[in-house]
Amino acid sequence: MARTMRAVEVTKPGAGFALVERPVPEPAAGRVRIAVDACGICHSDALVRDGTYPGLAYPRVPGHEVVGRVDAVGAGVTAWRPGQRVGVGWHGGHCFVCEACRSGDFIECERGLVCGISYDGGYAEFMVAPQEALAAIPDALDAVAAAPLLCAGVTTFNSLRHSDARAGDLVAVQGIGGLGHLGLQYARRLGFRTVALSRGADKRALALELGAHEYVDQETGDAAAALQKLGGARVVLATAPNAQLMSSLIDGLGRNGTLLVVGATADAIQVSPFQLIGRRRRVLGWPSGTAKDSEETLAFSALNAVASRNETFPLAQVNEAYQRMITNRARFRVVLQVGR
Amino acid sequence: MARTMRAVEVTKPGAGFALVERPVPEPAAGRVRIAVDACGICHSDALVRDGTYPGLAYPRVPGHEVVGRVDAVGAGVTAWRPGQRVGVGWHGGHCFVCEACRSGDFIECERGLVCGISYDGGYAEFMVAPQEALAAIPDALDAVAAAPLLCAGVTTFNSLRHSDARAGDLVAVQGIGGLGHLGLQYARRLGFRTVALSRGADKRALALELGAHEYVDQETGDAAAALQKLGGARVVLATAPNAQLMSSLIDGLGRNGTLLVVGATADAIQVSPFQLIGRRRRVLGWPSGTAKDSEETLAFSALNAVASRNETFPLAQVNEAYQRMITNRARFRVVLQVGR
Amino acid sequence: MARTMRAVEVTKPGAGFALVERPVPEPAAGRVRIAVDACGICHSDALVRDGTYPGLAYPRVPGHEVVGRVDAVGAGVTAWRPGQRVGVGWHGGHCFVCEACRSGDFIECERGLVCGISYDGGYAEFMVAPQEALAAIPDALDAVAAAPLLCAGVTTFNSLRHSDARAGDLVAVQGIGGLGHLGLQYARRLGFRTVALSRGADKRALALELGAHEYVDQETGDAAAALQKLGGARVVLATAPNAQLMSSLIDGLGRNGTLLVVGATADAIQVSPFQLIGRRRRVLGWPSGTAKDSEETLAFSALNAVASRNETFPLAQVNEAYQRMITNRARFRVVLQVGR
Amino acid sequence: MARTMRAVEVTKPGAGFALVERPVPEPAAGRVRIAVDACGICHSDALVRDGTYPGLAYPRVPGHEVVGRVDAVGAGVTAWRPGQRVGVGWHGGHCFVCEACRSGDFIECERGLVCGISYDGGYAEFMVAPQEALAAIPDALDAVAAAPLLCAGVTTFNSLRHSDARAGDLVAVQGIGGLGHLGLQYARRLGFRTVALSRGADKRALALELGAHEYVDQETGDAAAALQKLGGARVVLATAPNAQLMSSLIDGLGRNGTLLVVGATADAIQVSPFQLIGRRRRVLGWPSGTAKDSEETLAFSALNAVASRNETFPLAQVNEAYQRMITNRARFRVVLQVGR
Repeated sequence: MARTMRAVEVTKPGAGFALVERPVPEPAAGRVRIAVDACGICHSDALVRDGTYPGLAYPRVPGHEVVGRVDAVGAGVTAWRPGQRVGVGWHGGHCFVCEACRSGDFIECERGLVCGISYDGGYAEFMVAPQEALAAIPDALDAVAAAPLLCAGVTTFNSLRHSDARAGDLVAVQGIGGLGHLGLQYARRLGFRTVALSRGADKRALALELGAHEYVDQETGDAAAALQKLGGARVVLATAPNAQLMSSLIDGLGRNGTLLVVGATADAIQVSPFQLIGRRRRVLGWPSGTAKDSEETLAFSALNAVASRNETFPLAQVNEAYQRMITNRARFRVVLQVGR
Repeated sequence: MARTMRAVEVTKPGAGFALVERPVPEPAAGRVRIAVDACGICHSDALVRDGTYPGLAYPRVPGHEVVGRVDAVGAGVTAWRPGQRVGVGWHGGHCFVCEACRSGDFIECERGLVCGISYDGGYAEFMVAPQEALAAIPDALDAVAAAPLLCAGVTTFNSLRHSDARAGDLVAVQGIGGLGHLGLQYARRLGFRTVALSRGADKRALALELGAHEYVDQETGDAAAALQKLGGARVVLATAPNAQLMSSLIDGLGRNGTLLVVGATADAIQVSPFQLIGRRRRVLGWPSGTAKDSEETLAFSALNAVASRNETFPLAQVNEAYQRMITNRARFRVVLQVGR
Repeated sequence: MARTMRAVEVTKPGAGFALVERPVPEPAAGRVRIAVDACGICHSDALVRDGTYPGLAYPRVPGHEVVGRVDAVGAGVTAWRPGQRVGVGWHGGHCFVCEACRSGDFIECERGLVCGISYDGGYAEFMVAPQEALAAIPDALDAVAAAPLLCAGVTTFNSLRHSDARAGDLVAVQGIGGLGHLGLQYARRLGFRTVALSRGADKRALALELGAHEYVDQETGDAAAALQKLGGARVVLATAPNAQLMSSLIDGLGRNGTLLVVGATADAIQVSPFQLIGRRRRVLGWPSGTAKDSEETLAFSALNAVASRNETFPLAQVNEAYQRMITNRARFRVVLQVGR
Repeated sequence: MARTMRAVEVTKPGAGFALVERPVPEPAAGRVRIAVDACGICHSDALVRDGTYPGLAYPRVPGHEVVGRVDAVGAGVTAWRPGQRVGVGWHGGHCFVCEACRSGDFIECERGLVCGISYDGGYAEFMVAPQEALAAIPDALDAVAAAPLLCAGVTTFNSLRHSDARAGDLVAVQGIGGLGHLGLQYARRLGFRTVALSRGADKRALALELGAHEYVDQETGDAAAALQKLGGARVVLATAPNAQLMSSLIDGLGRNGTLLVVGATADAIQVSPFQLIGRRRRVLGWPSGTAKDSEETLAFSALNAVASRNETFPLAQVNEAYQRMITNRARFRVVLQVGR
């Protein structure tokens, strides 16, 4: 008789989460089964819940901030062995043979898989992922600590370290939420002069505690003007999925400045050639990272004491956990503790 | 009695061009008087004519595609001597002491001067410019040939050579006008696989003649889709000052693609985070170049047979010349022949 | 009964080439059998002949400039199908799971394979290679034309396009042999101002014909001084495996100049901190490219009329062919025509 | 009667230091007189003392780590006013009109001046420098704290921040002396995983205190092998002017690794093409920085608590101070306190 496991699935768009009993999945060739210890809840999980991700097949188990242990490996898997601590993030696999993959640009794979979207994710006791999607977890980080770094962490760390900003440059992080509270910590530890942008005077103390040298309250004035007063930002990391807000920050960029867009939305940023040309500014999007990027994010975080602040819930309380996240009340990431 | 010269001035916004007799100007310390041989007419000269450049003082002599000979040098000028062939482009001088200048980023000078806007330009027999604004003209180029390279040329050459595109990459040039007809020639000679985007089937032969490997007719279909069919552009050089058109081309960019904006307008480009993030795309503005960039543009053009196609007019026919340009009938740049 | 083929093998170090009859090899999973049409002879084939490549197992069929047609594919190969024209270069495969591969830097794979060294190469009617080592051959290039581009071509094209040099910069190519005669053509078509460095006044006409703007005769003077007279090189592409010569060219680099080393030898270049620091110079090695780089090299070559100049020999005349190459008498690459 | 000042001059090569009374110098046009508060003693001051800098005129006052206050400004100086705290480092001025200066690459100026070599430096109560050589000193740093940052500081900070290394990469600093003890602090605060290389087990505690994650004792084993064990260095910052030692560290570089040379000597580094090509390594020299770079170094140091550890001496004890430095007994920089 097949072994079973508990899993949270979305049966169809809008149906909410259902805790179900399912057979433990078997890993095909090139795939690895993971015994899940923890899984972060990300705002993008709404895509699965609400059915807004094009072409998604149901039922589907969400979850792309997965940390666990290798439980079994499929045929041909040589790089992983049972017992190893591993994680999977948004980037859930690639084809190796498309133009992007052959250039080594896996994140741009034409057939790229997304964990918890293209296949069942980490809201479950077990899941199966392609071997190339696995990141090793360092001993220094427990499962709950590591989970949000696999999506919120790698997205902010990877975009900042690949930006044009150099040590000492003015880097602003817009938003102090799930992404922003990590982005601020990374920005500070990369040697930038850091500015936090958020709403409300009460966020100042938090911002400084997380590593900001300066705090700009978006509510009580013109944030772009405030950035110019500080010299103009080399980078503004825009974490809130708010195109109107992003548009308003472009005038806060200094010469050669970059609006670094990681907050995903279909709404349009508005930016004129005049704003871009005179100061050689750019607006650039950044798409998380590969499993290797995740490992580097985890290693950096462990070495430099970057920590996600998490609220934890057992798998059975997934609805309550999700509500904390989706209503922006969580401080700052929500993680399901899955292992028994 | 002071020597006089003929000059074309704009007395006040909207007053049109007036051919006047004026005293020949004297070069102050650090400045150089140029005996003008030719001066290109650029679309930006409308800023002077129409009074749309903020803070511009009148009367003003327009013209920032100036080629002539050094006629006299002010005190302290050691780098130039009478008789040398020189030119001045849009970038008309810098302060050397601001944050940008001290970083060597002259084009971003906080007090940067614009030739023909901050001071009288090249629609005249003589003009005076700061020594750092002068570019040496190679023997291989006559005055008319060189003039448009000092603005339309340096803008397209400089932006393309500093872009991320590498030899063999797909580079599209939008527009086959004053900027675009040069951009195409440069793109080809930098080793790119080149696409011309313009309106009308009759432009195809011209595009191929100028160096395009492919031609996409914007009138008869979706240009972005056509670019994707060719593999997706690494760079789209957007020369037409048309924000709506620019917006429509972003989906024609491949992974890591750049919309390289040189066509200046205050209208807003619309671009969503979804368009940018997934393929790591960017929208980047580029502001012409310094005198040194102009020299490199001229040298490259002479060495590689890049030539502006010009219509020429004597100074006295400035109105007719300007009309050719402003109505987009010129093929492709209009140049005033000034020397007697 | 197994089908047989003709192949040239080296039985043991120093034993020379032997034309033998061998079974046609079968492609294992993930591998592809190629019906060879042509194979270039490269200087590195001496490593096989002389036994100077560490750990090489014998007998071994040399050859890493292979062009042919897919003859059969092993299990799991989806990217290639029989009949496709393909080639294999020096980089003969990678592991996908080491630190370098997971970063997309395949050429630096810790377990990287070399065609004709790690496994039998193209001096044969058939050979088998890992699927990731295959480059598609464009219709515009026949087998003989394409073969040398898979090693000599990709090495020079790839190193130049990834160098710091920009269009218009002074780029010198040292040596007009197998690599250099291609390097010159590429350098010119990338928009550089090109200098050829070689021995003897009789090489001047050839250098200019291949695309050099300038020729410097190393025999009749100080090549470094000659480069300084031209302004100092941004890049010197050093193709001859001669460390003493390389050392002598460092003083020919301008500010921020790069000695780009592709000529392989164990001898030591000598360079002092004084030479490097004052002008911010660097000495950089470059290791050919991946199959994707080869495809880009082939596409660029076809589009821009870069052609290897080849001497051809039938497989049976491998000894004569090799002698032409090893004695530097060949102009410029030697290619075995293998197909019947 | 002319005001006089105390100064330390070298009368002729080998004559040692002489404390003399001299007229206070007047600032010519474009120059600034500085009332000196402190001046660091750098190993390069030996060039003045020993007469090994080509073309140096005597008598000469050494000193290029100068901190003081603006005392008077020459004609045309608008960027500085009396009373401002300023400093001058190795880069002592540039011409603004050579090819390098016009490209904004001031440090590579063809007529670049060196403070304390091209003109009298900071071993004196007053000195005069070109205005472009002045860096503003932040309030947070006193004169003694700031002085060594103007040479040892900017050289290490500037080279590291412009290197290819990204946050999390393995960066080794060779030497824990005047440059190295600062290099280590910077490397750590730029987010690198840091390794200190020095001689003797007793240096370990100091290295870790300065910010090293790892310590490698060059005396008790193969430093290159130790670096490989850590994964291979992305950058080795080589501060000791010892070419043989530098050569031995190249094998400690990982793929795409850089030997970043700042320790100046005329001896030759030995590096083979084989060492460079296979792993795409490079050897790169770095020449300190401009006044703007110095300001950025000072601002970064103040913000991130990077501090030079200094021994201080009054001007009159210059001989004792110099002996501390030249015999490598100083921990770690020696600074003359000049103001009364």
